[in-house]
Amino acid sequence: MSTSVVETSPAPAENAEAKPGHGLREGAFGNATALACRECGHQVDLGPFYACPECFGPLEVAYAFPTVTRAEIEAGPRNIWRYKALLPVPTDIETSPNTEPGFTRLLEATNLAATLGLEKLWVKDDSTNPTNSFKDRVVACALSAARELGSRVFACPSTGNLANAVAAAGARAGIKTVVFIPSNLETPKVVNSAVFTDSLVAVEGNYDDVNKLASEIAGEEDGWAFVNVNVRPFYAEGSKTLGYEIAEQLGWRLPDQVVIPVASGSQLTKVDKAFQELITLGLVEDKPYKIFGAQATGCSPVSAAFKDGKKVVRPVKPDTIAKSLAIGNPADGPYVLDVCRRTGGVVEDISDDEVREAIVLLARTEGIFTETAGGTTVGVLKKLVETGQLDTSLETVVINTGHGLKTLDAVADRVAPAATIAPTYAAFAATGLA
Amino acid sequence: MSTSVVETSPAPAENAEAKPGHGLREGAFGNATALACRECGHQVDLGPFYACPECFGPLEVAYAFPTVTRAEIEAGPRNIWRYKALLPVPTDIETSPNTEPGFTRLLEATNLAATLGLEKLWVKDDSTNPTNSFKDRVVACALSAARELGSRVFACPSTGNLANAVAAAGARAGIKTVVFIPSNLETPKVVNSAVFTDSLVAVEGNYDDVNKLASEIAGEEDGWAFVNVNVRPFYAEGSKTLGYEIAEQLGWRLPDQVVIPVASGSQLTKVDKAFQELITLGLVEDKPYKIFGAQATGCSPVSAAFKDGKKVVRPVKPDTIAKSLAIGNPADGPYVLDVCRRTGGVVEDISDDEVREAIVLLARTEGIFTETAGGTTVGVLKKLVETGQLDTSLETVVINTGHGLKTLDAVADRVAPAATIAPTYAAFAATGLA
Repeated sequence: MSTSVVETSPAPAENAEAKPGHGLREGAFGNATALACRECGHQVDLGPFYACPECFGPLEVAYAFPTVTRAEIEAGPRNIWRYKALLPVPTDIETSPNTEPGFTRLLEATNLAATLGLEKLWVKDDSTNPTNSFKDRVVACALSAARELGSRVFACPSTGNLANAVAAAGARAGIKTVVFIPSNLETPKVVNSAVFTDSLVAVEGNYDDVNKLASEIAGEEDGWAFVNVNVRPFYAEGSKTLGYEIAEQLGWRLPDQVVIPVASGSQLTKVDKAFQELITLGLVEDKPYKIFGAQATGCSPVSAAFKDGKKVVRPVKPDTIAKSLAIGNPADGPYVLDVCRRTGGVVEDISDDEVREAIVLLARTEGIFTETAGGTTVGVLKKLVETGQLDTSLETVVINTGHGLKTLDAVADRVAPAATIAPTYAAFAATGLA
Repeated sequence: MSTSVVETSPAPAENAEAKPGHGLREGAFGNATALACRECGHQVDLGPFYACPECFGPLEVAYAFPTVTRAEIEAGPRNIWRYKALLPVPTDIETSPNTEPGFTRLLEATNLAATLGLEKLWVKDDSTNPTNSFKDRVVACALSAARELGSRVFACPSTGNLANAVAAAGARAGIKTVVFIPSNLETPKVVNSAVFTDSLVAVEGNYDDVNKLASEIAGEEDGWAFVNVNVRPFYAEGSKTLGYEIAEQLGWRLPDQVVIPVASGSQLTKVDKAFQELITLGLVEDKPYKIFGAQATGCSPVSAAFKDGKKVVRPVKPDTIAKSLAIGNPADGPYVLDVCRRTGGVVEDISDDEVREAIVLLARTEGIFTETAGGTTVGVLKKLVETGQLDTSLETVVINTGHGLKTLDAVADRVAPAATIAPTYAAFAATGLA
């Protein structure tokens, strides 16, 4: 890297040098310079903070990037750390034990494209991450922050994918990990976290109760890094790597259209942030792109606000099979509205039945078994085509964020053997399947 | 590539040019030249054959390799096709729709090494393949063969991982896919195949009955490619990529010791074949290495033969939770004995309880959730250390072949939340977990 500084939004502090507080080592957060409020722009030192002390707006990592070249990135490891210069992590990040997530498949989806009537379609498949969802990306960044901040405990409230990712990453890093889940979770989801940690805590209540308890503990205890609470600004940056990878895997160029699921909305806004950074850094050519958000109708506050032309999102009580998207009061909802409107995309939603149909559609056309969140995204893509909201002549990417093995029940009653036969050739011949 | 020819075992035919039969296109099988009998050396043309017409021995792909360089491989795609020059596939293989498997993580396992008392240990983690097992590698090679042979139908008998891989690969390739499973399979395993294909056939009987039916259909029907029956020689070559990747990911050198699960035994012999090829081609330095085989005691015919000093394997009736290793009459058993004895390794087995313990051990130390086959391999590694059969000062690689989400039941009663509490800080504080 050379030392010439490229500025990206949010605008770096006037004094763009890193200002480590709290006894941080030099370069603990790489090229990050501060935490900047997304509402009022006020900046605070890098640390375990997530709300602006001035206006309570959300804090986001600000950087002073040096020149970064494609060659430098391409020479890096085959995981998210190839983009370490663009993340709030130290330059030696790949030497610290972590799950080495990312650089997942970008598959050209010729069959699905033909079925839907699209000219060029890609699936970015994050179901092959270490714990089978995109959460491994964000958790890896949160783990680095926890390490650099000297946290004693690595923790999260979760109902599924996040719990898996935190428990696995914590085990590998050798840091004490405490994961909080609702006590009424299905056995498979419990096992998939409990196998990694002996500090899984079942909480009597729903996810909101678990989340509230996590915030309380974060306030009471010193040295706890709750990935999606007090180190959230660092955690959220991990989603940018989805955007970087899409661009690099397309041969260092941006797609025309991207369809992304919306839970908190963070992933969608970070993919946009990644594209903007790549343009600013000169790593891709500047060109128009449209970002589309996908929700399940049973939890579609952002889609509703988009359709109503509102700038704020009215919370809802979730009721959908797409549980990993079931956030009724999405923190980044307003920013999703901004991004989709600015780029010319939309936010759309589909029914649970359409989610189930889309899971089978993706499996049958491309051999990818997605969870309900991916079903939502593919189903919304289909609806966007059918309603003319997406341009079928433009190159499109759809993001699959997780694995169908985690939400088997969604399709268990929709797919089945074509026939049950005696073990003889005659019995098989009679099925007509030959 | 230059055109100088490097000969590898099995010895190429005197006439080393490809001899396409059956209307094959030029280069349909890359640098493969023939199918050679592993027993008598007799060669037949490349085609859908698996048994020697002279002695009924198993046929294996023979090659005339050109010079292949590290740089050529490193410039290739980030999946098994980077090794296409060493596989029986055409040079344009990466342009045909496939699941793009391989190039999975090689993770340094510092915590597990410390726990077991090993100086340097790596886990080759194939649970992050497209359908979460190493089977995606072999199925991708079988699919290429099916395509080049003009097969109408892509098929297999299976109880699990293979069914998932075939159904997914077939869907993506747009070829008719028929998958045969025993009718008494657990719902999750059925769903995980049925989601990909509308031609899943449940057969009343056990796996042996299903397998027998598959052979019968392969004999009766034209144009069927049964991956593990009539295109088995091509299919099996896919396992070599595990060996290539281990060497490349170690920086183009061989490890000292490798521990590999044994079902049919094919994977173990192909990793050895890969190492030998890399040495012959000058891609790695020639050095001694030891290969160890892992079985569950409930299906340990190869381990028993090894311990008895026998050259043949006496079939057993499997009774173990490691169902993906439960092949009572392993086709490559004798070759596994050869490889382990020749390299100075051993074949060892452990109880189902030790398998379960090892699954939790790997999860807690390295954040990897393996299926029972991986538990068997890690558990055998532990036993080899404890019994002094493995040198703890030497660099060791253990292969994880599949994902724990597929065999959840194995550990469902062994891992659980540490506490179930009311949603209050006081209740949490009382757990002692802070």
